Amino acid sequence: MSHRIAVIAGDGIGIEVIPEGLRALKAVTERFDIALEFQTFDFGSCDYYLEHGKMLPDDWFEQLKDFDALFYGAVGWPEKVPDHISLWGSLLQFRRRFDQYINLRPCKLMPGIKSPLAGREPGDIDFYVVRENTEGEYSSVGGKMFEGTDREVVIQDTVMTRTGVDRVLKYAFELAQSRPRKKLTSATKSNGISITMPYWDERVEAMATGYPEVAVDKFHIDILTANFVLHPDWFDVVVGSNLFGDILSDLGPACTGTIGIAPSANINPEGNFPSLFEPVHGSAPDIAGKGIANPIGQIWSGAMMLEHLGYQKAADALVKAIEAVLESGDAQVLTPDIGGNGTTQSLGRAIAERI
Amino acid sequence: MSHRIAVIAGDGIGIEVIPEGLRALKAVTERFDIALEFQTFDFGSCDYYLEHGKMLPDDWFEQLKDFDALFYGAVGWPEKVPDHISLWGSLLQFRRRFDQYINLRPCKLMPGIKSPLAGREPGDIDFYVVRENTEGEYSSVGGKMFEGTDREVVIQDTVMTRTGVDRVLKYAFELAQSRPRKKLTSATKSNGISITMPYWDERVEAMATGYPEVAVDKFHIDILTANFVLHPDWFDVVVGSNLFGDILSDLGPACTGTIGIAPSANINPEGNFPSLFEPVHGSAPDIAGKGIANPIGQIWSGAMMLEHLGYQKAADALVKAIEAVLESGDAQVLTPDIGGNGTTQSLGRAIAERI
Ligand SMILES: CC(C)[C@H](C(=O)O)[C@@H](O)C(=O)O
Ligand SMILES: CC(C)[C@H](C(=O)O)[C@@H](O)C(=O)O
Repeated sequence: MSHRIAVIAGDGIGIEVIPEGLRALKAVTERFDIALEFQTFDFGSCDYYLEHGKMLPDDWFEQLKDFDALFYGAVGWPEKVPDHISLWGSLLQFRRRFDQYINLRPCKLMPGIKSPLAGREPGDIDFYVVRENTEGEYSSVGGKMFEGTDREVVIQDTVMTRTGVDRVLKYAFELAQSRPRKKLTSATKSNGISITMPYWDERVEAMATGYPEVAVDKFHIDILTANFVLHPDWFDVVVGSNLFGDILSDLGPACTGTIGIAPSANINPEGNFPSLFEPVHGSAPDIAGKGIANPIGQIWSGAMMLEHLGYQKAADALVKAIEAVLESGDAQVLTPDIGGNGTTQSLGRAIAERI
Repeated sequence: MSHRIAVIAGDGIGIEVIPEGLRALKAVTERFDIALEFQTFDFGSCDYYLEHGKMLPDDWFEQLKDFDALFYGAVGWPEKVPDHISLWGSLLQFRRRFDQYINLRPCKLMPGIKSPLAGREPGDIDFYVVRENTEGEYSSVGGKMFEGTDREVVIQDTVMTRTGVDRVLKYAFELAQSRPRKKLTSATKSNGISITMPYWDERVEAMATGYPEVAVDKFHIDILTANFVLHPDWFDVVVGSNLFGDILSDLGPACTGTIGIAPSANINPEGNFPSLFEPVHGSAPDIAGKGIANPIGQIWSGAMMLEHLGYQKAADALVKAIEAVLESGDAQVLTPDIGGNGTTQSLGRAIAERI
């Protein structure tokens, strides 16, 4: 059985790290005898937009929907296309139309990586952020009135549905239940955001009754971000709305020193549509074209894709290869962001060779 | 000329730290010959709610509006009253009805305090978060439909007005202009929250044209929280919406190790209504009644109040007294949260004596 993977590199360093992601995937699938077929698409990038006046062709849904997964680089180049156009025109469309309602991001202190937090060692920090990925604060409902006058008012709705909230909570509770510590932390702000957030809390309480083994706590998002810095060891599975999950899944990797190498999975758990795998980092126009972007986020996202497709062993081997290369500390190989003087290619090659 | 100060202790450790705040204020106003008259109110607490079925008496606005400032402890005790009721019934009413549209919070690495960030020294981190304090994500507009069914949907509006956005930006630009580094960072999320946040960006750009000396940058809130951890030295004045400012003004103090001692000012710059001064920390039911709460947040808020009333020298003297006691490192005096075995009172007394 062969899996069909759509590859979209996007913009900036996305274009540089995708080849290294593919190199690592080829090495590991060869070793584990897994058949992946890759097909590359040029849409979903700002250059495509400049040529066609839109981020995606009209039939993108038809073109992509039967793939088994999307392997995605990074999109956005604000000097070419405003972010809200490029992102709403591509990535956020995929998440919604392919109903990838789970955004899963590991926050793990890796060997060889220095945490910006004092005194934290590998093993101290190891948790997942589970983010709702289709609704909430990222709505397209709202508008502007009295435009251009002093009375100007702009409104945007946060929309939460029972379906949307319950399914992400269920996924997070299942994940917590499957882990040794069985701990779930919910991000809320029900003291200030007084309609949607008390509802979120209510649904967490309702869901918790079905998982008596899972220890549940909640924090308001303000103090929760503080606790990521002060007590990152407290966390096991952290679940949040679209916006809160977005914030926590950048802050978490920052606390583990891995903002440039963290992976993410945008998952449709039912498999009705392809899931999407992308690094947490963006397209980083400031370092694009220099060949120094760190490809680990892309490669690690490939490991999450293999896991999603059912190849746990291959996924583990890939993560181990990343860890081994990081641990080696070989400055010739590592990219500048993690203390080396190597290139995107030298690091990508070293990981592929380790497999 | 004498200033009238309304004192509301609220709940939990609010009740324990307020007397130390008053002790320090009395010491410093004596030394600088400033006349403050204090009047204490018992409303705005969960106990008041349990007795009266509301957080505030009907005529609270009349009772308080002619004071020169409100000196506030902390409110909330979730086991007695749900947070969204206690907070919307008190603190958030004051902020709105007294049009305290600026929430100002210093993030400063103090001598004697260990930052959780590796290798950061006093002097390395010293910035302000300026938070919009009356509108935005903290709206009371929205509701629920199809309640109790699978179709249940909950909606809450984020509301931004030109008046509301421009005035907080103006305050932040003025503040940046008055500081040596003249740097302003705007918190946005215009790539995901596609209606209100691009509007925020637009207003920042418009305001910036009036402040050519101020260097402006912006970050999406997700990467901004990461940069607080990775590069806290980048920041001088950070301005954000109600929610983003809330998050950043907890995370900032966490990065400086001062979450328990940071102060805040809720300001009506025009002086049409009293401004409100309160510590960043909450009522902390878990440690309430033990006499170990750190009173520095309350005392430092008193310094911000003096500054607001025009007594810069007295305010500086109060902050210096706090710094001196922290620097002394006297374990007999310091509270447990900052490494001592003293009490709320021992620390409060030591600061008052230093003045
Ligand atoms: C208690 C809560 C409503 C409040 C807020 O979110 O504004 C607090 O977190 C603060 O920052 O003052
Ligand atoms: C680019 C942006 C729209 C996106 C998001 O906010 O979802 C990104 O920050 C992410 O976390 O994947």
